[in-house]
Amino acid sequence: MVENAVVLLSGGMDSATALAMTTSNRSNVIALTFDYGQRHRKEIEAAKRIANHFRVTDHRIAAIDLTAIGGSALTDRQIAVPSQRNLDEIGKGIPITYVPARNTILLSYALGLAEASGATAIVIAANSIDYSGYVDCRPEFYAAFQEVARLGTKRGVEGDVIEVRTPLIRMSKADIVRKGEALGVPWALTWSCYHGRAKACGVCDSCQLRRKGFREAGIEDPLPYARTPPTKT
Amino acid sequence: MVENAVVLLSGGMDSATALAMTTSNRSNVIALTFDYGQRHRKEIEAAKRIANHFRVTDHRIAAIDLTAIGGSALTDRQIAVPSQRNLDEIGKGIPITYVPARNTILLSYALGLAEASGATAIVIAANSIDYSGYVDCRPEFYAAFQEVARLGTKRGVEGDVIEVRTPLIRMSKADIVRKGEALGVPWALTWSCYHGRAKACGVCDSCQLRRKGFREAGIEDPLPYARTPPTKT
Repeated sequence: MVENAVVLLSGGMDSATALAMTTSNRSNVIALTFDYGQRHRKEIEAAKRIANHFRVTDHRIAAIDLTAIGGSALTDRQIAVPSQRNLDEIGKGIPITYVPARNTILLSYALGLAEASGATAIVIAANSIDYSGYVDCRPEFYAAFQEVARLGTKRGVEGDVIEVRTPLIRMSKADIVRKGEALGVPWALTWSCYHGRAKACGVCDSCQLRRKGFREAGIEDPLPYARTPPTKT
Repeated sequence: MVENAVVLLSGGMDSATALAMTTSNRSNVIALTFDYGQRHRKEIEAAKRIANHFRVTDHRIAAIDLTAIGGSALTDRQIAVPSQRNLDEIGKGIPITYVPARNTILLSYALGLAEASGATAIVIAANSIDYSGYVDCRPEFYAAFQEVARLGTKRGVEGDVIEVRTPLIRMSKADIVRKGEALGVPWALTWSCYHGRAKACGVCDSCQLRRKGFREAGIEDPLPYARTPPTKT
């Protein structure tokens, strides 16, 4: 049976893989991308190209201004994105790129869209392995949100609960690269860098995690990078 | 001890009363109003005047485009707002003015703001008595969201949980009028009508519930109304 699913699509490698997993699974997809006051537009352009690649005909781009929240380097222009940290430091503690409650906000929006459109599932590419510092990437958070989906929608209350799916939650970046590669994710169309320059910087947290994932999976990342972090000796 | 609280302020009589209850309670308030693609701007203007009346110096207005969700008469211009129903019908079933998951989305945003600003509570004027058709106005929904607040924020995970408060949840409209009156809510500054005309229409669900509340409380509503619903015979 073909189901309808709302897939959160940021334009990065994780959500592209989650989208590939969903389209390969006899699902009709509504892709949902947020324009949330990111510092750059490259993510949104990447999301459009990826949706197009997977022939998603219903791609919604919702403007949510998260800058009124403040407190994160990704939405607050007063706070600098850290340009280079050691790979060891990444994923420990809560990073300055954490946007408070961001996943809760985006999931809630996806829940509204699922309810309005009759979709039976929401798919989010959250991942607890490489993002241990982000509290809203942990499985227990999604279990709690599933209850909100049950009690906060009319369909849920009527017994037709919208399922919150996190297919990547326990995968490492290398696992994601392997899975995406097997499903034909067009890596060259994805964008992971926190900066929005012509080339990915190669050294921000996100670039380093991505490169580590490809390296460990033994697969070549087709993206050109501006810099390479110094190898630890 | 003075606490900091984020109060969701729509511009209606309920949230104005919740704000009055919070400011009277030794709290510093951040008022949070959403520009969510409402059909009219009068609500937002009302929220500004009310915040000003209560000397709230930090009033944030966040743009969230809910029109990408669709499915509600309040955000989808293809769907007409029902202009007149019998008071008996209001509150039964799920109304076409229900915006799927709206309270979940707005609460999530408030959660992000509370986490970023160090507030210890979020106050939402949800009410289960006169809005039984809205699933996200029920106490069990807020209990579920409280768990999301605990597990989806770094402060919650560290044991400093942001409290989700619904001070009006079990109050009738008449109770709210009495409470607001006692706390000096400037009713003339509030706006409840689903339409955004010069005068409140007097006959939409929201106007009728408001007028019933004032009538039952025995207090005069200072708002001028364009029409009066026919009295039942």
